[in-house]
Amino acid sequence: MSGTSLDGVDAALCRVDLPDADVPLTEATVEREAFVTDEYEPSFREYVRSICDEATTVEELARARVAVGRRFARAVEGLLETADVAPEGVDLIGSHGQTVWHSPANEPLPADLGRTRATLQVGDPSVIARETGIDTVADFRSADVAAGGHGAPLSPLLDWIQFGRASEDRIVQNIGGIGNCTVLPEGGDWSTVTAFDTGPGNMVIDAVVERLTDGERQFDEDGRMATAGTVDDDLLTDLLDDPYLERAPPKSTGRERYGDGYATRVLERARKDGLAADNVVATVTALTSESIADAYERHVDLDPDRVVVSGGGAYNETVLSRLEDRLSVPVETSGKRGIAPDSREAVLFGLLAALFDADRPGSVPSVTGASDAAVLGTLAKSSAKVDSPGSRHSTDDAADRCSRESRNAGE
Amino acid sequence: MSGTSLDGVDAALCRVDLPDADVPLTEATVEREAFVTDEYEPSFREYVRSICDEATTVEELARARVAVGRRFARAVEGLLETADVAPEGVDLIGSHGQTVWHSPANEPLPADLGRTRATLQVGDPSVIARETGIDTVADFRSADVAAGGHGAPLSPLLDWIQFGRASEDRIVQNIGGIGNCTVLPEGGDWSTVTAFDTGPGNMVIDAVVERLTDGERQFDEDGRMATAGTVDDDLLTDLLDDPYLERAPPKSTGRERYGDGYATRVLERARKDGLAADNVVATVTALTSESIADAYERHVDLDPDRVVVSGGGAYNETVLSRLEDRLSVPVETSGKRGIAPDSREAVLFGLLAALFDADRPGSVPSVTGASDAAVLGTLAKSSAKVDSPGSRHSTDDAADRCSRESRNAGE
Repeated sequence: MSGTSLDGVDAALCRVDLPDADVPLTEATVEREAFVTDEYEPSFREYVRSICDEATTVEELARARVAVGRRFARAVEGLLETADVAPEGVDLIGSHGQTVWHSPANEPLPADLGRTRATLQVGDPSVIARETGIDTVADFRSADVAAGGHGAPLSPLLDWIQFGRASEDRIVQNIGGIGNCTVLPEGGDWSTVTAFDTGPGNMVIDAVVERLTDGERQFDEDGRMATAGTVDDDLLTDLLDDPYLERAPPKSTGRERYGDGYATRVLERARKDGLAADNVVATVTALTSESIADAYERHVDLDPDRVVVSGGGAYNETVLSRLEDRLSVPVETSGKRGIAPDSREAVLFGLLAALFDADRPGSVPSVTGASDAAVLGTLAKSSAKVDSPGSRHSTDDAADRCSRESRNAGE
Repeated sequence: MSGTSLDGVDAALCRVDLPDADVPLTEATVEREAFVTDEYEPSFREYVRSICDEATTVEELARARVAVGRRFARAVEGLLETADVAPEGVDLIGSHGQTVWHSPANEPLPADLGRTRATLQVGDPSVIARETGIDTVADFRSADVAAGGHGAPLSPLLDWIQFGRASEDRIVQNIGGIGNCTVLPEGGDWSTVTAFDTGPGNMVIDAVVERLTDGERQFDEDGRMATAGTVDDDLLTDLLDDPYLERAPPKSTGRERYGDGYATRVLERARKDGLAADNVVATVTALTSESIADAYERHVDLDPDRVVVSGGGAYNETVLSRLEDRLSVPVETSGKRGIAPDSREAVLFGLLAALFDADRPGSVPSVTGASDAAVLGTLAKSSAKVDSPGSRHSTDDAADRCSRESRNAGE
């Protein structure tokens, strides 16, 4: 998958073992066998950024489906090279693609067609299947939208499978650009699972670090700047006085609230107050951990016995230790239980592909708001092993005569 | 499917029997068991027209995937009601959807991603599968585009399966808005199949009839106006003096050449010459049959032993009899051999869905220009028969708690 940060493609090689259909999915095992992040070249990142824009035309979008599909196929090839596994050894690719539009508003459609939310990812599975030789499942959000849901979040399913079957109450906290939590009450009943966005994750920390170091650093490695600095209590108090943090779930947020404009306001205030760089970083790092702890106190009915942290934020020691201090319960990274925090999302789509293959639903309606659970995704088949329609040996002949100039789709 | 005319959804119930993998597809049987055209309401037609526009935004497109998907699902429901068949009696839906963009130009992609053509249909198969309870294959053009082809035309496969295995040379002539022919040399070798757009089909006749009757008629039923009128040879000669008709294939054309502007020029000339309405219709009807016959003489290497006509134009007796006179070979409608001319395209996508299901390719590379044949389409599964991930009885509980307000796809 590629997320909203547009860094590149995260690709994980997974082994998924599903239990029989009458056994809850908490008995499934999901193992990560290899993982790469295939970083976008600056020119490609700029291209993808230009596509993820309201003004993108239909033609640009149609081409981007192919362009992003090819880029994802390259990421898979890199992953398989790293893992030393041949394409024939892989059953299925699960590809999230790149979201170019996700509209949570349930708005009316024309005529008598009711209302709907909408979601759109690019990265054509037909392209990925062709270029890798591996059948590819993609478009994992549409079936949940079709069932009246938001098509998001999807990661609580993996949280539930990995951490939901326990004799204790747990919260799985993902810290990506935004923080989001999955609440898993004791007992493992999937219909009791809830999830919401807690507030800022790494987004504010990363932006502040990048601008304070004139772009020399993109993030605060292991939370070192935050550790070296001192939290400014006045600034922190003001940042925590935030209507989003007070609002009850269900709720979600993103770059429109905690993006560049937010970082600019923090930095202006810090300059006015004469704060040192490390102190600013320490303060926005505390904002992340405090807003998470506040969210649990305000908006979660249970007191968790354990918090499991995933996402890039799981590597920030300062965030983790502050969170543990505040909550007085064990806070551990998801890697401790099998899947490294940076690759959980990529692994999720491997799991969802396996569920598609097994005709099993991948959505959690209590989280997405759908009326019921759905098999997520659409499958494109690789043609690597098929024969031509005419005979086994005519493909090469056909290829020789291929130089058509212009056709339309009017049929 | 819904074509460029935006009339409505053509839906056919088909029985497809495929031979074993080592037997050519000409041994397949494709039967049409029922057929409906579910006409768009004027408001919905206007909506679809607005989507099929360069200026459509990504959000509009994301919503249109759902809107058109629901409309297609309704068409399927109407078809099954007509045929008195339950959804459980249907294996698979093949849905072409509505083309909103099809770009035959092989243009460069960013970075080092090469070149591609592009195609985009709306009508989300996840929506169709959910609303009908039937697994749905859609997006039939992308895999051919991924293989370097135009993703069009696809109908020559059905022409070849139905008419290709013969001891005579045949041309299958489709007369939709535009005319296009599939050339099937004797012997049935699929790699010898070619196809191209012959020129105007019904598009000019329909536009002229509609404007001469002030919108009272949308087309010349059974060619009656043309039969009543006399061809104006001067006008016909001038219309046939047309660079498109002279150009060698591969070639395609569409509304941009033979649409409203073309009809306006014909009618202005006719008014200047003082031609009666029936005579104008007779002349543009002759244009269709003459341009088809000219195309064979100019651009097809073989002299056909038989011409099989499909599409709406097959119902225009005047076109058929003029064509027979010109070519001096039997001209018959495709309905004579099993599938009524108006439903051939809808049947095609039923066939393509069956080929997807059987892991067999549906493209003809000698026609689309692809480097090799591909399994066409992407499959969305109905969730009608699946259990929830937790247990068999938790779905209702989950539905009760569904009123989430706002989520994003950042995961």
